[in-house]
Amino acid sequence: MKPPAFIKRLFTKPATTGSKPDRHTRKTVALCHALLSERGEASGAALAREALQAYRLLSGPALSAFFDVLAREFSPEPKAVEEAAGDYRLDPSPANLIRLQHVVESPRQELFRRLNLAAGGTATLVEMRRRLLRDLKGQPHWAAIDADLVHLLSSWFNRGFLSLQRIDWRTPALVLEKLMHYEAVHEIQGWRDLRRRLAADRRCYAFFHPALPDEPIIFIEVALTKGLSDQVQPLLEPDSPVVDPAGADTAIFYSITNCQEGLRGISFGNFLIKQVAEDLGREFPRVKTFSTLSPIPGFRRWLAETAAAHAQLSELVDTLAADDWFQRAGPGTRNELMRLCAYYLQHAKHGQEAADPVARFHLGNGARMERLNWLADSSKTGIARSAGLMVNYVYRLKDVERNHEAYAKEHVVVASPGLSLLARESLPARLKSRRRE
Amino acid sequence: MKPPAFIKRLFTKPATTGSKPDRHTRKTVALCHALLSERGEASGAALAREALQAYRLLSGPALSAFFDVLAREFSPEPKAVEEAAGDYRLDPSPANLIRLQHVVESPRQELFRRLNLAAGGTATLVEMRRRLLRDLKGQPHWAAIDADLVHLLSSWFNRGFLSLQRIDWRTPALVLEKLMHYEAVHEIQGWRDLRRRLAADRRCYAFFHPALPDEPIIFIEVALTKGLSDQVQPLLEPDSPVVDPAGADTAIFYSITNCQEGLRGISFGNFLIKQVAEDLGREFPRVKTFSTLSPIPGFRRWLAETAAAHAQLSELVDTLAADDWFQRAGPGTRNELMRLCAYYLQHAKHGQEAADPVARFHLGNGARMERLNWLADSSKTGIARSAGLMVNYVYRLKDVERNHEAYAKEHVVVASPGLSLLARESLPARLKSRRRE
Amino acid sequence: MKPPAFIKRLFTKPATTGSKPDRHTRKTVALCHALLSERGEASGAALAREALQAYRLLSGPALSAFFDVLAREFSPEPKAVEEAAGDYRLDPSPANLIRLQHVVESPRQELFRRLNLAAGGTATLVEMRRRLLRDLKGQPHWAAIDADLVHLLSSWFNRGFLSLQRIDWRTPALVLEKLMHYEAVHEIQGWRDLRRRLAADRRCYAFFHPALPDEPIIFIEVALTKGLSDQVQPLLEPDSPVVDPAGADTAIFYSITNCQEGLRGISFGNFLIKQVAEDLGREFPRVKTFSTLSPIPGFRRWLAETAAAHAQLSELVDTLAADDWFQRAGPGTRNELMRLCAYYLQHAKHGQEAADPVARFHLGNGARMERLNWLADSSKTGIARSAGLMVNYVYRLKDVERNHEAYAKEHVVVASPGLSLLARESLPARLKSRRRE
Amino acid sequence: MKPPAFIKRLFTKPATTGSKPDRHTRKTVALCHALLSERGEASGAALAREALQAYRLLSGPALSAFFDVLAREFSPEPKAVEEAAGDYRLDPSPANLIRLQHVVESPRQELFRRLNLAAGGTATLVEMRRRLLRDLKGQPHWAAIDADLVHLLSSWFNRGFLSLQRIDWRTPALVLEKLMHYEAVHEIQGWRDLRRRLAADRRCYAFFHPALPDEPIIFIEVALTKGLSDQVQPLLEPDSPVVDPAGADTAIFYSITNCQEGLRGISFGNFLIKQVAEDLGREFPRVKTFSTLSPIPGFRRWLAETAAAHAQLSELVDTLAADDWFQRAGPGTRNELMRLCAYYLQHAKHGQEAADPVARFHLGNGARMERLNWLADSSKTGIARSAGLMVNYVYRLKDVERNHEAYAKEHVVVASPGLSLLARESLPARLKSRRRE
Repeated sequence: MKPPAFIKRLFTKPATTGSKPDRHTRKTVALCHALLSERGEASGAALAREALQAYRLLSGPALSAFFDVLAREFSPEPKAVEEAAGDYRLDPSPANLIRLQHVVESPRQELFRRLNLAAGGTATLVEMRRRLLRDLKGQPHWAAIDADLVHLLSSWFNRGFLSLQRIDWRTPALVLEKLMHYEAVHEIQGWRDLRRRLAADRRCYAFFHPALPDEPIIFIEVALTKGLSDQVQPLLEPDSPVVDPAGADTAIFYSITNCQEGLRGISFGNFLIKQVAEDLGREFPRVKTFSTLSPIPGFRRWLAETAAAHAQLSELVDTLAADDWFQRAGPGTRNELMRLCAYYLQHAKHGQEAADPVARFHLGNGARMERLNWLADSSKTGIARSAGLMVNYVYRLKDVERNHEAYAKEHVVVASPGLSLLARESLPARLKSRRRE
Repeated sequence: MKPPAFIKRLFTKPATTGSKPDRHTRKTVALCHALLSERGEASGAALAREALQAYRLLSGPALSAFFDVLAREFSPEPKAVEEAAGDYRLDPSPANLIRLQHVVESPRQELFRRLNLAAGGTATLVEMRRRLLRDLKGQPHWAAIDADLVHLLSSWFNRGFLSLQRIDWRTPALVLEKLMHYEAVHEIQGWRDLRRRLAADRRCYAFFHPALPDEPIIFIEVALTKGLSDQVQPLLEPDSPVVDPAGADTAIFYSITNCQEGLRGISFGNFLIKQVAEDLGREFPRVKTFSTLSPIPGFRRWLAETAAAHAQLSELVDTLAADDWFQRAGPGTRNELMRLCAYYLQHAKHGQEAADPVARFHLGNGARMERLNWLADSSKTGIARSAGLMVNYVYRLKDVERNHEAYAKEHVVVASPGLSLLARESLPARLKSRRRE
Repeated sequence: MKPPAFIKRLFTKPATTGSKPDRHTRKTVALCHALLSERGEASGAALAREALQAYRLLSGPALSAFFDVLAREFSPEPKAVEEAAGDYRLDPSPANLIRLQHVVESPRQELFRRLNLAAGGTATLVEMRRRLLRDLKGQPHWAAIDADLVHLLSSWFNRGFLSLQRIDWRTPALVLEKLMHYEAVHEIQGWRDLRRRLAADRRCYAFFHPALPDEPIIFIEVALTKGLSDQVQPLLEPDSPVVDPAGADTAIFYSITNCQEGLRGISFGNFLIKQVAEDLGREFPRVKTFSTLSPIPGFRRWLAETAAAHAQLSELVDTLAADDWFQRAGPGTRNELMRLCAYYLQHAKHGQEAADPVARFHLGNGARMERLNWLADSSKTGIARSAGLMVNYVYRLKDVERNHEAYAKEHVVVASPGLSLLARESLPARLKSRRRE
Repeated sequence: MKPPAFIKRLFTKPATTGSKPDRHTRKTVALCHALLSERGEASGAALAREALQAYRLLSGPALSAFFDVLAREFSPEPKAVEEAAGDYRLDPSPANLIRLQHVVESPRQELFRRLNLAAGGTATLVEMRRRLLRDLKGQPHWAAIDADLVHLLSSWFNRGFLSLQRIDWRTPALVLEKLMHYEAVHEIQGWRDLRRRLAADRRCYAFFHPALPDEPIIFIEVALTKGLSDQVQPLLEPDSPVVDPAGADTAIFYSITNCQEGLRGISFGNFLIKQVAEDLGREFPRVKTFSTLSPIPGFRRWLAETAAAHAQLSELVDTLAADDWFQRAGPGTRNELMRLCAYYLQHAKHGQEAADPVARFHLGNGARMERLNWLADSSKTGIARSAGLMVNYVYRLKDVERNHEAYAKEHVVVASPGLSLLARESLPARLKSRRRE
């Protein structure tokens, strides 16, 4: 298909500002302009297809140049915005509001919506945001593109459009392979490992979006157990015997993975956990406890920083320097570490929020910190980040709203009495209370 | 589930302005506010479910009161808008743009998105717009609600999310029943009629959206024929013999129906026609012509108005007063009517656009006016509106963009030489050209 | 495809016996022979396709001629049978048994199996038996063909290969149309009637076979009710209000229909009733009673015969001659008829079996005769055959085997005490008991 | 469920002959008898379920005892057979034929059909035959059981009931795992290997039966190539680059695997090859050659035997003793081996049939021996069995029937001129022709 005359003109028009886009980038931009024009309306999906194809070939500097143009040429007109805002201030009528909203919306949004007319559009836009995020730090002027993409993708990937699907050994290999690729919390060591994770006493669920049929958006791995798990390695052991799930009273959410980097910041985990808890509760009426077994990724770093300020802790921290310290640790070390960790989880802050990122996620969802577990994760990473400790966050569906509100409004960290007691016995807590006296 | 304390408080709070919502409306509004609050984030889909249920019970004055509150309490703050617009004017930075866009968006939009978290949300929002549109004329202050719904639904019902499905005798009765209900151009007279329209020499396709699984969004009915059809009744005849579609060289789009009143103004027809033409072209390589057989709904009214201004036409118009005029019409009447209709289609204007609404649709899609057909629709409606005439609009995929652009930019009505000649021979054209001389 | 030389030879070979098959029949027979030969083995499904096509064109005398050949040329060799049987008698070794079984099997069976290699084979064989049965009475020498088809089809349509599918308003129209066509017990009066039979308080299930994907084999219609239904017309009323099935305690099987004439004599009803009772019991734990509401097709005829022998009944029988007798019948008539009918159901015999064919079916399945209902079927047929009476047969899954055995071994008609009492009070019963005294 | 009285009686009845079955075996036999009785008819699938469960627990001597009873107690009555055969001899009427066929059929067959009423019945019967075959050699009196199972399973697994399904990376892992397990010709070395075999330039198809939904019956692996492949290792190489199949002109069937030991002797390969060739021909109109690349499993053994008789070959055979002979083999050795192999394939006999089992299969299907390939299979097995040689069998659909007939009737080995020439130049051929002179 020969490009029509006006596109050729665009090619020869000198770039008005900044970086000089190469020939292919200019062609892509021209197609984007055409897609927003009258032609775009008539062409059905044909022009969108062409523009998508052109875009997909961009990479490196050409891609950056394209994003530069997107930021520059597809933003709202400040002048028009000013006028419309003024009119709305004088008369906040529906007509003025509608005009203002129209004027304020970036033409980019409409561009993205029209790119989505073609097959594969949604996947390409998710991928576009992934590539944008990769270099966003160095290109702060792209932030408005990101904001537009987030706005659009949040709307499109609304929970109402996602379908929950069980993942098991009947799932297509194509999808299973992706799970293995994406899982980052507890890496899957090949098909044998995966097979165990999908056996009768395990469950795995993922959200899918109709426009990305073979792409999990997020998935969760669950073990059906008797009692609250206090160690993760037995759950991961490929050779562990499969037990009858009918005897289980607890569902342990031992891993949850967001798959799409391009959807970063759009929240799915909360919906997934609650939906899965509801569904499992129906399938297994005897399962009454829904709990995670979670890492505490920030504990050791916080401990090192805290030790720098408290000489009393230096001996403890020195102990941890040995490779096999955890195999030799006595009850004293163990108790002291558990108390410190409880303190870290409940009282260490990042602004007003909990310092630990995993804690932030589950508290924000309305879970309660239940129990600290010694030597719960003896993997290299587990030892290095959290001294081998893991924590259970328990989801009680009837308390979830209240807990969430307490955390969201007043940053109350809801924790079990046992965990709170541990925290109170920790050195920093004792120092604080002494100071108060 | 008992409503929590803060909702009860809302109930007893005196309404600040305007109409007095009843108890149930106030409860619904309170749930909507709660859904937008922190609680809404934590509750997963539970609160959305509750709010949807409450909303669905509203009707009559309670529904109007609810829309009043939606218009009043869920709009952007003019003050905040003014500030953000001012900042953006002074410094059109990404940060200021993002803040402005955020401030300008109605909280309604977020409310609608959160209602969509629950099952059935999308269907309810489409239905909400249907009910809003029904009374919008008398309630102009609801226009901003409508604008928000249109914005959201246009984005959600993007072509990229629709799937084209063939409708045939294997389609669930549930869906077929809806087709019979929705078809308005050429009414379906029960199951026997429908069955004929789905036989081997017919095709029917619909767009579906994943969130409305059994609801056609729009559908099109096609007859596979030899040559361009010049009469619609034979195509609709339930007892007509079914012929082998392998011999067809033409696809006649004889009916296209938008099903969802709540999606009015969101355009699907253009995409549907082009997709179906592409698919049929692949399935039947010998089919080379894709054409409509369309009504001309505005012709008789225009003719009456024109006759009022041109005494020469009064005799003709008088002829049409008889019930059976068309059975007795001689070649003179026939020729004169065809010329006038050709003139109407090509030259009568509604603003700058073609006066005939069906013409506007197909010209806007890039089709060409091909041929006028005498006694093509002898139904009561056909005679009353268009003196029994119908017109073929032909879609040539390779000309579609060019035709569309010609029409969209310069309002050029692309028509066949034959039709243009007919128009030139009409009385109004002759008068005009005489005047010019 | 040109027929190979040896087929041509077959055509010219003079027919050795009986009717003179025409040219096309001879071709069909030749293809059947070829299919059984070496060539048949190599050709994959190609030759089977050809033979099926040829067969499908046969009708009238040509079809009869074909069946004649099937009976004559594709039967076992009596001589070979005699030898093999003799060997088996002398030495009942596995080898001799296997040879005998091989020799005794008609080549027809292998022919039918090979015809089944081609797509549509199973459907054609079912249809073949339908056409064979139609004329079998006049052609007793076809009985062996029928026996072979029954043997094969019984094996292929084994319960293990059937799938139970729910029929509802989501079922393809194609299948629903067939249900309307096949239902004979209580005719379906069009789509509106059908729709009511598939509403929330009704259930319909059918068996399907994988080789006949859109063809129901047998289907059953169920009403979910409170208490045992005593009238069928309210169940059939298209305008009756739909009630919530959650409140039901009884499932009434009010119609069961065998769809495939070509599968006559192969029993599916027993399996269907039991499977549906099990499934409904799971879906509706509150439903405890599974019962039919069944016609009594032979009652009036038996009554007429009985009255001929018992003068005391002539007055009653005379009463029934009026068109509207049932509207005027007083308690006396009513009681007498109910007693006679109870007697007929329990004691009238056809050989050793129950005289009533519907009774034979349900007793053979292990059901119990529960209750007679006055004016339960006021349709013309219902009045004419059974004086408007209907009977409930109740299926209690735990009694089914015992009841069946009692009936099958000793022809015990298992009936409720109430029904037995009615029977004992009838005139024939009283006469008998007097005679015994 | 408690066993009813008559089953208990059976338990205590003394075994009349042979091995003494244990308690559980006797229970299983009793259930089998019950299933064949009146009770079996009434119970729906319940009794079949029970009998299947009991059977599945049998193993070792208990299973053998069960088979002994099956052979003894469920065979036709010789006396009744004799009578019926006599009657048929005297009067070969349909009635006598039907009775004879009925009497000759083992009650076992009906037992197997009734076992199939329960879910999983078909799979259990296939498995039963697998276990029977395992020990059949030592238990010749089980042959009649085997014959009955073969008869039934051949009928049930008729081509008309199998569905061809493409196997690719979207296939459930459950099924893919089975393929890896079953493939025996060219073992699959794990998921990575499998993934390559399912890439864009490969195809894999399997037959499935509706009663065994996740169990492939037979599968075939195909490579789409340019030209006839002469080496198998490149086709199997997991790291080989994937090429665009649109450029292919040849489909190489490089592996075909029967999966169900319990269906041994029931032929599927012929149908599968032809169906796949047809389907591929439609999908890739440029693919004109359909060929295998097949092992020659009997060549080396035949060569060793032949060498024992012909001193002239001893040097050649000695050469092959070295481990790496094939890497050092000069043109002389190579030519001599190729000629001998060509001779073996074309002229070596097993009875009247081709000596090589793979050759028998493909010639029986109507393929033609096309080309011998040097060092085509350098695997250990390939060298050990066929001196690294492989042969292409070409399927030309239009020649298949003729080739098959030539082979089946006159044992003509259809081979290409090149292969025939090679064979004529071999030592045994030259000796023969000399002898003839």
